[in-house]
Amino acid sequence: MITKEQLQQYRTRAKAYLDRAGIVLTAKEAAEIEVADFNLGRTEEIGLELVVYVNTERCCAKELVLFPWQICPEHRHPTVAGEPGKEETFRCRMGQVYLYIPGTPTAAPRARIPQDKKDTFTVWKEIVLNPGEQYTLQPNTLHWFQGGPEGAIVSEFSTKSRDEADVFTDQEINRMTRVL
Amino acid sequence: MITKEQLQQYRTRAKAYLDRAGIVLTAKEAAEIEVADFNLGRTEEIGLELVVYVNTERCCAKELVLFPWQICPEHRHPTVAGEPGKEETFRCRMGQVYLYIPGTPTAAPRARIPQDKKDTFTVWKEIVLNPGEQYTLQPNTLHWFQGGPEGAIVSEFSTKSRDEADVFTDQEINRMTRVL
Repeated sequence: MITKEQLQQYRTRAKAYLDRAGIVLTAKEAAEIEVADFNLGRTEEIGLELVVYVNTERCCAKELVLFPWQICPEHRHPTVAGEPGKEETFRCRMGQVYLYIPGTPTAAPRARIPQDKKDTFTVWKEIVLNPGEQYTLQPNTLHWFQGGPEGAIVSEFSTKSRDEADVFTDQEINRMTRVL
Repeated sequence: MITKEQLQQYRTRAKAYLDRAGIVLTAKEAAEIEVADFNLGRTEEIGLELVVYVNTERCCAKELVLFPWQICPEHRHPTVAGEPGKEETFRCRMGQVYLYIPGTPTAAPRARIPQDKKDTFTVWKEIVLNPGEQYTLQPNTLHWFQGGPEGAIVSEFSTKSRDEADVFTDQEINRMTRVL
C-alpha cells in the first residue's frame, strides 16, 4: 500500500530519471507512471517504476526505473493458457543494473538485500548491465534485479505482459499496488 | 548497392544521431549498424539505418534512424507460414516522423517524395509523430514513413521481424542491401 502523496512523489522522481536519460514521455504517460510497491510498503527498498508503452496480445515494451539500490523482487513468468510465459529482454539505458538468474551463484554479488527478506532471493548468478548492455531471459526463469548506486533505467522488450500471472518467491507480495 | 565507404559514412552519421538522443550502443552494435538502401542506390532519399537489439521467434526491438527527409518506402508484413504478419509499434524518440497508412488521404501531406517514384506511394493518411508519440500498426497494413526536416529516431517494438518476407510496392526494391 502507498499513499496518493507517495505515488506522486515516486512518479515525479521517476520522471526526473527519464528526463536525465533524454527519454521523452507524453504528459499523459508522465501522469500515469506506474509505481509497484508489491504490497510490501517499503518501495524505496523493494519497488519499481514503470512506463508501459504498448502491451498487446503479441508483444510489449516498457521503460523500468529503479532508484538507487531499489529491488524488483524475485519472480517468474509461467505458462498461461498453454502459451509459454513472457520472454523478456532487459536493456540498460542509464546507470547500472544487477540482474540475478539461476546458475552458479556469484561469489561476491553486488546486490544489497534487506536481511529480513533474504530467504526470498534464491537465485544468485549475477549479470551486470551497463548502458547499452542487455540480456534476454527465457520464459519461466526465476529472476530479480536491483539498481546500482545511481539507480537505473532499463528498457524491457517482451512478449505479452501479464503482471497478474507473475509468480513471486515472496508470498507476502501482491503485484497489484493499492493506493490509499 | 552501396560501397563500403558509403556504409561507413552512413553508420557514422546514424551513430551521431543516436548519440544526440542519448541512446547508448555497445561498440559492436555501433560497428554493425545496418544501412538499408533497398537496392535503389539513392540512400539519402530512400533508405534507413537500423540497430536491431533483439529479434527472437516471438518478439523484436530496433532503433530506426532517418536522416532529414529520408524515406522508408511503402511495404507490408504479410502472414508467414500461417502466422499473422509483424505487428509493430513506432515510437518517435527524436525529431519528427511522418507515417502514412491506408485511409482518407491527408489533404496537404508533409512528405516530400521523389517524383519518379510517386506511383510507389499509394497510401496517404498521415500520422505525425513527435518525440514521445507512437502508433501501433496492425499486420499486413501498407505503410511508409519519412523523417522530418531534422531527421528522426524511432523505436520499433514488434513481433518477429522477417525483413526478407516484406512486400514492397516498388518492384525495383530488394530489402537486402548489397555492399560492394
